[in-house]
Amino acid sequence: MSNVLEVPSGAGSNARGTRHSADEMSAWSARIHDELTAFFEAADDGGRFREDVWERPGGGGGWTRVMAEGRTFEQVGVNRSVVHGALGRELAQRLLLAEGSGGTFFATGVSIVCHPHSPRVPIVHQNVRYFAVHDEEGTAAAEWFGGGIDLTPTYPEPDDAVHFHTVLRDACAPFGAEVYPRYKKECDEYFVNHHRDGEARGIGGVFFDHLGAPASGMDVEQARAFADAIARTMPDAYGPLVERRRNEPWGEREKRLQLFRRGRYVEFNLVHDRGTRFGLDTSARIESVLMSLPPMATWTYDPTFDPGSIEARLMEMLVPRAWA
Amino acid sequence: MSNVLEVPSGAGSNARGTRHSADEMSAWSARIHDELTAFFEAADDGGRFREDVWERPGGGGGWTRVMAEGRTFEQVGVNRSVVHGALGRELAQRLLLAEGSGGTFFATGVSIVCHPHSPRVPIVHQNVRYFAVHDEEGTAAAEWFGGGIDLTPTYPEPDDAVHFHTVLRDACAPFGAEVYPRYKKECDEYFVNHHRDGEARGIGGVFFDHLGAPASGMDVEQARAFADAIARTMPDAYGPLVERRRNEPWGEREKRLQLFRRGRYVEFNLVHDRGTRFGLDTSARIESVLMSLPPMATWTYDPTFDPGSIEARLMEMLVPRAWA
Repeated sequence: MSNVLEVPSGAGSNARGTRHSADEMSAWSARIHDELTAFFEAADDGGRFREDVWERPGGGGGWTRVMAEGRTFEQVGVNRSVVHGALGRELAQRLLLAEGSGGTFFATGVSIVCHPHSPRVPIVHQNVRYFAVHDEEGTAAAEWFGGGIDLTPTYPEPDDAVHFHTVLRDACAPFGAEVYPRYKKECDEYFVNHHRDGEARGIGGVFFDHLGAPASGMDVEQARAFADAIARTMPDAYGPLVERRRNEPWGEREKRLQLFRRGRYVEFNLVHDRGTRFGLDTSARIESVLMSLPPMATWTYDPTFDPGSIEARLMEMLVPRAWA
Repeated sequence: MSNVLEVPSGAGSNARGTRHSADEMSAWSARIHDELTAFFEAADDGGRFREDVWERPGGGGGWTRVMAEGRTFEQVGVNRSVVHGALGRELAQRLLLAEGSGGTFFATGVSIVCHPHSPRVPIVHQNVRYFAVHDEEGTAAAEWFGGGIDLTPTYPEPDDAVHFHTVLRDACAPFGAEVYPRYKKECDEYFVNHHRDGEARGIGGVFFDHLGAPASGMDVEQARAFADAIARTMPDAYGPLVERRRNEPWGEREKRLQLFRRGRYVEFNLVHDRGTRFGLDTSARIESVLMSLPPMATWTYDPTFDPGSIEARLMEMLVPRAWA
């Protein structure tokens, strides 16, 4: 394995050689899971989550919380997983490890997708995860953090994009001036429907991976603090948008626009998203993987939009730019 | 290239070394295109197709005919394409050629997807195509036919599956007793949402590829006659189902079931379908590739169905069996 960190062993029985123990990181994802479900229950102002617990055949499992038909949100899914097992060749390749396989891995994280009822309230997605790999002797190891948060408007409100990115920029600031622009750019480059001539899924946010690994620009403690900071931006980044937009009026035309953009959301998730495709190809619980899909979506053959219309203005917003 | 057929050259300027000329096969797909659009206009009893002509940057192009919001059909797309160009390594791999690249290819075909308004009327899909590859000298060549037709019910009507498969079995009979079971099985094995624990997209039909190539069991003239026969089954296989079901009553529950199955249709097409993924990865016109997606689809988190309900009965129908 190429990404071996020279750190003391004995941090935990499942994670010798890493700074963080499996128990510690499991508690980390449990806290984020609880914070996010509490935020979305409060923001919805009426809806409640149900929880399904599932086991992964290869080791570990997950806790999927779904709020269906809330007052504000049509569907919110908050997934937490704690998985471990053998590090096969395919997984090592997907993790972009130069070599590897033959060892084991441990991973835990939380991902969330929120599809509001109102087209005026944007879709939000967030994900944070910790990953550790160990060689066959179980001593040498690498560990890193990945994740991000991004916004998908279904109605053209540039002010919302400015607010969202300003909160993210400020959350990144303590970690260095280059951090926000770097991971904002990675986000812009990731959430792209390449088959749609490079059309973005939404207006981006931040996206990072392998943070804490060598050459990532942060050590693993900084990476953890950064992942923590991003995991905690939801109330400030998204909360005010929900409050601002939830009572604004909308009609059939706005709903049609939302369903059209949700179709593109489906396309990205099923065709391009690495996390979704990883879930589809492995033994993950499929209902938990695909809780990211919207409750309803539409496709219209070859749509055209009048210049200056809400549809055209939304499409213009999707061109990446400096929002903050 | 491995699949070289020893046939006389000079059959056409674009297809030296093959039995069929490019002009001849272009006329073949044009006729099928016209027959299918005529059938669907008649079957819809009110709707009309619009046609969009598009050019493929690498060579050739297509004619996409779409009927939107017809009387019976919510959307019907009938694509015809005639494309040619350099045979790169990636294309050679996708065509499952053992070697190849460095030469050229010519392909033409018609594909059709029909999404009815009523949940009582099943979705139908059909595709026929001719493919020829030539080596660098433009003399030695291989040519073959591929395609199929399959049905995706959105309401449990076993009688419809029996009718559909009986017509297909009879259409295959003149080509040998083993033909229908062989390509029925290939169809059952192809239209599967593997990520849904092997759930079938629909109740199948027939599916074939590389027919006319060595070891396919047919010479290229037989393969053409077979592709022709399959291309002409639509009126007998599907027409009676439209007539039988179009005026049957349905309500919100039946519509919900249809939209649920359409969600699975989206999943198959975006995640697994080789033709769609080929279109997404190449420079094909994206609106023509994705006209197969339904006008509207839904996803419900972890649905459960009461035993004996229409939902449960439809799911049971999807388990492959001998319908004819």
